[in-house]
Amino acid sequence: MGMGAKPPVFAEASHAELTPIDHLLRSAVVHGGRLAVVDGDIRLTYAELLEECTRQAGLLAELGVMPGDRVAVLAPNTSILLETHFSVPMAGAVLVALNTRLKAAEIAAIVEHCGAQLAIVDEDFLDRAHDIAVPVIAAEEFRLRAQSATPLCLPVADERSLLCLNYTSGTTGKPKGVMYHHRGAYLQSVAMAYHLNLGVDTVYLWTLPMFHCNGWTFPWAIVAAGGTQVCLRKVVPSESWRLIREEGVNCLCAAPIVLGDLVRAPEAGPLTERVKVGTGGSPPSPTLLAAMESLGFDVMHLYGLTETFGPMVASPWYPEWDELPDDVRSKLKSRQGAPNLISQPLTVVAPDGTIVPRDGETMGEIWLRGNNVTLGYFNDPEQTAISYADGWFRTGDLAVWHPDGMIEVRDRSKDIIISGGENISSIEVEQVLVAHPAVAEASVIAGPHERWGEVPVAFVAVAEGEEVSEQALIDWCRERLAHFKAPSQIIFSDLPKTSTGKIEKFVLRERLRAQ
Amino acid sequence: MGMGAKPPVFAEASHAELTPIDHLLRSAVVHGGRLAVVDGDIRLTYAELLEECTRQAGLLAELGVMPGDRVAVLAPNTSILLETHFSVPMAGAVLVALNTRLKAAEIAAIVEHCGAQLAIVDEDFLDRAHDIAVPVIAAEEFRLRAQSATPLCLPVADERSLLCLNYTSGTTGKPKGVMYHHRGAYLQSVAMAYHLNLGVDTVYLWTLPMFHCNGWTFPWAIVAAGGTQVCLRKVVPSESWRLIREEGVNCLCAAPIVLGDLVRAPEAGPLTERVKVGTGGSPPSPTLLAAMESLGFDVMHLYGLTETFGPMVASPWYPEWDELPDDVRSKLKSRQGAPNLISQPLTVVAPDGTIVPRDGETMGEIWLRGNNVTLGYFNDPEQTAISYADGWFRTGDLAVWHPDGMIEVRDRSKDIIISGGENISSIEVEQVLVAHPAVAEASVIAGPHERWGEVPVAFVAVAEGEEVSEQALIDWCRERLAHFKAPSQIIFSDLPKTSTGKIEKFVLRERLRAQ
Repeated sequence: MGMGAKPPVFAEASHAELTPIDHLLRSAVVHGGRLAVVDGDIRLTYAELLEECTRQAGLLAELGVMPGDRVAVLAPNTSILLETHFSVPMAGAVLVALNTRLKAAEIAAIVEHCGAQLAIVDEDFLDRAHDIAVPVIAAEEFRLRAQSATPLCLPVADERSLLCLNYTSGTTGKPKGVMYHHRGAYLQSVAMAYHLNLGVDTVYLWTLPMFHCNGWTFPWAIVAAGGTQVCLRKVVPSESWRLIREEGVNCLCAAPIVLGDLVRAPEAGPLTERVKVGTGGSPPSPTLLAAMESLGFDVMHLYGLTETFGPMVASPWYPEWDELPDDVRSKLKSRQGAPNLISQPLTVVAPDGTIVPRDGETMGEIWLRGNNVTLGYFNDPEQTAISYADGWFRTGDLAVWHPDGMIEVRDRSKDIIISGGENISSIEVEQVLVAHPAVAEASVIAGPHERWGEVPVAFVAVAEGEEVSEQALIDWCRERLAHFKAPSQIIFSDLPKTSTGKIEKFVLRERLRAQ
Repeated sequence: MGMGAKPPVFAEASHAELTPIDHLLRSAVVHGGRLAVVDGDIRLTYAELLEECTRQAGLLAELGVMPGDRVAVLAPNTSILLETHFSVPMAGAVLVALNTRLKAAEIAAIVEHCGAQLAIVDEDFLDRAHDIAVPVIAAEEFRLRAQSATPLCLPVADERSLLCLNYTSGTTGKPKGVMYHHRGAYLQSVAMAYHLNLGVDTVYLWTLPMFHCNGWTFPWAIVAAGGTQVCLRKVVPSESWRLIREEGVNCLCAAPIVLGDLVRAPEAGPLTERVKVGTGGSPPSPTLLAAMESLGFDVMHLYGLTETFGPMVASPWYPEWDELPDDVRSKLKSRQGAPNLISQPLTVVAPDGTIVPRDGETMGEIWLRGNNVTLGYFNDPEQTAISYADGWFRTGDLAVWHPDGMIEVRDRSKDIIISGGENISSIEVEQVLVAHPAVAEASVIAGPHERWGEVPVAFVAVAEGEEVSEQALIDWCRERLAHFKAPSQIIFSDLPKTSTGKIEKFVLRERLRAQ
C-alpha cells in the first residue's frame, strides 16, 4: 500500500480471510528491519524477505503458474524452501514440499500424483529430479530470475482453500497427499508462536525437516513472531552445535532421534542460554529428557500428525512441577498432553466405539477434530472418508487418558503386541530398554508365539563403545516390567528409519520373519 | 462429552466455528484443577468455572432467554461479570455489560436500546436499576438459582454472529452499541494472550473495567491461557496493592490515569516480582512510564477502541532497547506501535484521502480493518455506514506514522488545535506539562484567538502538596516546545472524566466558554 495513494477499498472492515501470508505482510511492517532469515551467506530482513517472496510469486506467474496450480519444491532446510512457504501461496498456488530422503522414482510419483506445473529443485538434489515429468527449475536460478520479476501477492479468496499438500512418508502403503488449508495453517502457527513463546528475540534453528508437516508450521510461526530462522542444509550435530553457539539459537524442534544424536555428539556441552525445544513424532524417553535438561534444553513434548498440521496436542507445564524429583518430571514430560491453544477437545475411543474412562489405564484410539485438522487426502476420497469419518480424524494411535485430562500414547494401533490376551505397549518396553546405558536405540515388535499368540521382540542398536548381552538386557527389562512385557528375544542391529526419522517397524517385521 | 458414551458426530473434522467459549471448554480439561477465579471468598477452579457457567446458561434458558436475545449485566469487576462472559453466549444470547458509572436513567436507556430480555444486577447497584423496564435479577440470586439449573452450552452456528454489545461511553453524543462477534473476540483474546505472555502462571488483577470493551477481551484471554483472574470490586489503589502482594498478581491492565493513582498511592513500593502492565485509552506520559518502571512494572503500550475489541495495535519491544537511555526508552514506549499479531495492516489517511508518508511528521486519521474490527453499531445503520465505510473503520484519532512502521497518536481529530495554520497536538503539550513535578494531570484544549484563530489553553490539576504559578508553567512549556505550542493560559482545576477515565474535553470547552 503505497503512500500518497488512496487506501484500497474492501468489502467489509470487520473481516479478513485467515492466511499465514498475512504474518509476513504484518512483520514486514512491524519488524521490517529485523533479521528474518539466515542461510549461510544469505541474511534477509523482514522487509527483504517480503520483497523476495513477492518477486518469486511474480516469477511463478510469469512461468505460467495459475491460482490453484501445484508447485513442488525439492530442497533441504534452506532459504528457498522457507521463502516458497510464502511465495507459492502469494501466487495463489499450492506448495508441495518434497521429502528430500526419497528416491528419484518416489519423487517423480509424488510430482505426478499432485499434478504439479513446476518443480523447484535445490542444486544438490538435481540428480534426484531427473524422473520428474514437469519443468524443473534450479533453486539458484529461480532466486536469480525472481530479482527482475514484478512483485505479486494475490489475495486469498477463501481461507478454507488449499495452501499445501504434504505427502506422508507412511510406514506402510502408498504416499498420501494431505491437504492443508490457509485457516488451519494460520491458527496452528499462532498456537505454535504461543506455546513455544516465540518472539522478536527468538532465533530458531531448522533441525526439523521443513518438508515434514511444513515444519510443524514454524516457517509461518516464526515470521508471525518476528524472530530469526537459521537454515540448516544438513542436520548434522556438529553443524547444529556450531549454529547454536554462533548464531545464538534459543529454539529448535526435532524428533527424539535427532535430539539423541545432538546430546551424544562430541560437540555437546552445557548451554550458556537455555534453548527451548519442541519434540514429537515419537515419545521422548525419560532418559533423553533428563539428558537434554541437564545440558540446558527446555523440552516441550508435542503430539500430532501430518493430518493435524503437526503438533495439535501439547504438554502443559506448571511452575510447581519444577520442584518435583527428576524421574517424576521426566514422566510428566513424556506424556503427550492435551489440545493446544487453538485445538478442539479430543477424544479417546475404545474398540467398541465408546469414549474410554480417564483412568490412565484403558487404551483407545485418539480421535482429533478442529481447525487444525486437514481437509483429507488429495484425489483420494475413499481414504479420506475412512480416516475423517463422522467429523473426527482417526489417528491410528493408541493412548490412555489420565484423570488430569492428559493423554499418553502407548502405541500405533498396528504396533500393539497382544500376548496371552494382554496388551503390551511397545513404547513402554522401548523406554525401559533405552534407559540402559549400553542401548542407543530400541524398537520392539510382536514376534509369533505358539502359546501366547504374540511376544515382544526387541531390536537394539548398541551405543558406541558399549557392549551388552542379550540376557543382560532381558534381565534389565524383567526387573523393571511385568515379566510378560519383557522381550523374549533381543536382536542387535541398526534400526531402519523413514525419511522423517521414524523407525520402520514393517522392515523389522520382515527381518524377523526372514530369520 | 461423557465417558462410556459414543463421541458426538460432526459435519466436518477440519472445522470449528471460532468462539471464545471454546477457551473455557478447553481449559476446563487441560487446566481443570487450576485456580481460575478469585473474588473475595469465591475461588473457582477451571472445572468449577465451567460447571458454574453452563448452569448459568441453563438458568438463562429457564428464565426465557432465547438464542439471539440480549442479557444486560450491571456489576463491577466481580465473578458474576466474568462468568456471564461465557454463560450468556453459552445460552446463545448476547452479553451487554453495562457501565457501572452511568446514572439510572442512562442505564435504563441502554437496556431499552439493546432490547434486553433480562438484566442481572449486582447488589450494590440495585438502586441504579430501578428505571430498567425489563425483569431484573440480583446477581447473588442468579448465582444461587444457577446451582440447581440444568447445564447448557449451545453450539455457535456462525462465528460472525453477535457475541456482545458494548455501549461506548462517548465523550460527546448518544451512546452507541458496538457489535462484537465471536470470531473477533476469539482471535483478539488469542492475540492478547500472546502479546502479554499470558500463561498458567499468570495472576491477573482486574483494574481495567470489564464493561469496557469486555475488559479488552481479557476475561477470555486469561481463560485461554489457564491463568488466574483476581476480581476487584472497587478500583482503589490500596486494594490493588494489597491484592498484588497477597495474591501474587503479575499482570494487569489499566488506563494511564489509573496507573498514575497506583504509583502515587501511599502503599506504592518496589515490587518483588515484575508485573506486566498493558495500558491504553490515552497515551501514557514518559513521566508515568519512568515511574512505573522504577517500581518494577513492565509497561506495554496498547492502542485501540471499543470498535476494535480494545487493543488492536501494540508497541513491540526489542531486547537491545533495554540498553537505551531512560528518556529514549520512554519515548519509544509512548508510541502506540503497530498492528497486533492478528490485526490487518493499518493505514493513516490525510485530509485529502491519501495515505500519509511514514515521516513521523505528517498527521492523518488512523484507519483500521481486520478480524478484530466489530460489525458496526446496533440498530444504527447510518452511523455504521459513516464510520465503517469502504472496508475501513475510521478511528477519529490523528497520528503520525514513523519510518519504522509505528504510529504515534497526536490527538483525537476534534481535539487538534490549529493556531496560525499550524497543527498543535494537545497530547504533546500535555506531556510536557505533566513532566513538571508540580503537575498531577493536564488537559489542553483550543481557546479562541483573534489573530491566530486558536491557541492552546491548559487545564492543570496540581499534585498534592505542590504549588506552581501560571507563568512558571508557561515558561516550562516555552523552554521545551516551539513557542506557538506553549499554552497562552493555564487554568488550575480538577479534570472531569468519563466513566472509563478519559478526560472530558467537551466539559473543559464549556468551562472555557463560560469564563
